[in-house]
Amino acid sequence: MVQIPNTPAPTMPPAPRSVPTSADVARLAGVSRATVSYVLNNAGAVRISEPTRRRVRAAAEELGYVPHAAARALRAGHSRMVLMPTLPVPAGPLYSQFVHDFQGALSSLDYTVVQYGATGQGDDDAARAWAELRPVAVLVAGPGLGPEGVAVLKRSGARAVVTLSPEAVEGARAVPLDHADVGRSAAGHLYARGRRRIGVVVPAERGMEMFSAPRLAGAREALHGSDATVTELSLAYTEESAAALAARWPGLGLDAVFAYNDEYAMLLMRALLDAGLRVPQDVAVIGADDLMLGRLLRPRLSTVRIELPSGRELASLVDRAVRSPAAAPESHEPYGATVVQRDSS
Amino acid sequence: MVQIPNTPAPTMPPAPRSVPTSADVARLAGVSRATVSYVLNNAGAVRISEPTRRRVRAAAEELGYVPHAAARALRAGHSRMVLMPTLPVPAGPLYSQFVHDFQGALSSLDYTVVQYGATGQGDDDAARAWAELRPVAVLVAGPGLGPEGVAVLKRSGARAVVTLSPEAVEGARAVPLDHADVGRSAAGHLYARGRRRIGVVVPAERGMEMFSAPRLAGAREALHGSDATVTELSLAYTEESAAALAARWPGLGLDAVFAYNDEYAMLLMRALLDAGLRVPQDVAVIGADDLMLGRLLRPRLSTVRIELPSGRELASLVDRAVRSPAAAPESHEPYGATVVQRDSS
Repeated sequence: MVQIPNTPAPTMPPAPRSVPTSADVARLAGVSRATVSYVLNNAGAVRISEPTRRRVRAAAEELGYVPHAAARALRAGHSRMVLMPTLPVPAGPLYSQFVHDFQGALSSLDYTVVQYGATGQGDDDAARAWAELRPVAVLVAGPGLGPEGVAVLKRSGARAVVTLSPEAVEGARAVPLDHADVGRSAAGHLYARGRRRIGVVVPAERGMEMFSAPRLAGAREALHGSDATVTELSLAYTEESAAALAARWPGLGLDAVFAYNDEYAMLLMRALLDAGLRVPQDVAVIGADDLMLGRLLRPRLSTVRIELPSGRELASLVDRAVRSPAAAPESHEPYGATVVQRDSS
Repeated sequence: MVQIPNTPAPTMPPAPRSVPTSADVARLAGVSRATVSYVLNNAGAVRISEPTRRRVRAAAEELGYVPHAAARALRAGHSRMVLMPTLPVPAGPLYSQFVHDFQGALSSLDYTVVQYGATGQGDDDAARAWAELRPVAVLVAGPGLGPEGVAVLKRSGARAVVTLSPEAVEGARAVPLDHADVGRSAAGHLYARGRRRIGVVVPAERGMEMFSAPRLAGAREALHGSDATVTELSLAYTEESAAALAARWPGLGLDAVFAYNDEYAMLLMRALLDAGLRVPQDVAVIGADDLMLGRLLRPRLSTVRIELPSGRELASLVDRAVRSPAAAPESHEPYGATVVQRDSS
């Protein structure tokens, strides 16, 4: 319906000259720019008469002047913006809920959460791009932030850089979240159920490696040295891909599968059932994320529940780090994973 | 585990004095601030010798200076930031995928998408807060942006304000997306299947009204003047709420339900089946969104597919609007809805 141009965007013409600045407000009100700044930013320490304040506010109103967030942050020495890079894949239900809760909790502490969505940048370039917005705190859920990126952010005024990852990055506060533990728990559970030929689904979609690689590694680790085998299974999130995998299942000789997460597990379990396999008698199936939908299927889907800090907990941690950037980071137990056994395993 | 303070955040101490500015770079390199700005922003029109350029870059590197996005935007007359307010509810699968695609398409056109997450602001306050970030374009998926908000954004340099909503807002480009049509389609389908006592689910969760109200209104509209009745049914997204509704189902005397979307439909259909009702013989069930998971259930879930512009189409529309802010808005057919009948209705 619409054409996507293949050429890069040309240089744009300058913005219309009508964007009002604080200088325009100052001119109209007959005061200095400093006075405009004091009045509109409610700088309490400066004595300015009420009539002058009214004149400045009226001029700003008349011109439709909006202060510049970054300029204000520069004057104040900090912003109230907490920046989160978006994930390289569409957010799943668990992450969407977490972001929603985190955002609500930070809003009630008077911060604004901004999710930053540029893709395809190198690690240091990404941190530099985030730094240009001058956030007071940065929360990074995926990998890809190194010590140099942390240093860039801190030099640009970020008081807290928090990572949700298994390994600590120098200069950042780590909330230790270990996806390998999801794979370890799932594989350990299937082994305890007597299964020895265990498949592990790796989504075929791009950008999932940050989660799927540690889950596979954790499964391998849990079964290392045992009498069980681990077979990597590529699966795209389509009915066709699931049907194809189910069709060649008998040749694989697997008696169990850890299907990456509940969505892939629901898809694969349906295809296995449709192919005439019995779950769990022929194939035990376990997912991860503990979505409610997994409880609606028959057999009910077993899953691995991931222990996550709540949005409120994490917002409070970010707030404390912003207030006391020099305080020693609090130590956390690593967040782990718990098997929820239902009828599919 | 952690304490959430009840008091508002106190004034914070000023940022450490070590945040380097362009003045620091200028001092170290022995040049003017203007020269620093020209060099670091690659202003091609200005002649500056290569040794000077090198000295400025080395000084910026040594100090760890990062340009200020907003200051740069101010000089350039525009930013490359496209701002989207986040929804007041956790994003569902359809919206997550859309945001992911839109962001990817805009990234390839050299824009950055920022999702802005403050909540609980009045309409004009929200637009003013967005304006402070000086976005070049704003895409609003929900309601709540009025003509005054559009004017504030445009005065602050936004070249395009695009709304995804049934009604046009003065000054904004409307991509006409009509949730009422989802309700009209669902109710019309159930009527055509011979059902006359039709329930319409309204989620009990807060913040869903922007979608649920037009869907209910559309269903009422489609059946207005017919021999069918419409009964509003409140349902929370929990198994308990669904079981309670299923338990009182016989007393309601309904022979069909439009269950808001596929997730609520899957939840309610499971509870109805568990309560001994037959789907579709006793109750016809239809959802909306055409999620793949609805095809995994038995009976397969009927649904309403919502016609949405693709992320690429919308990105291209935003880009054209940014390049030609004065061009007349292109007109669109309203995006509608299509029933996908499967086995549950």
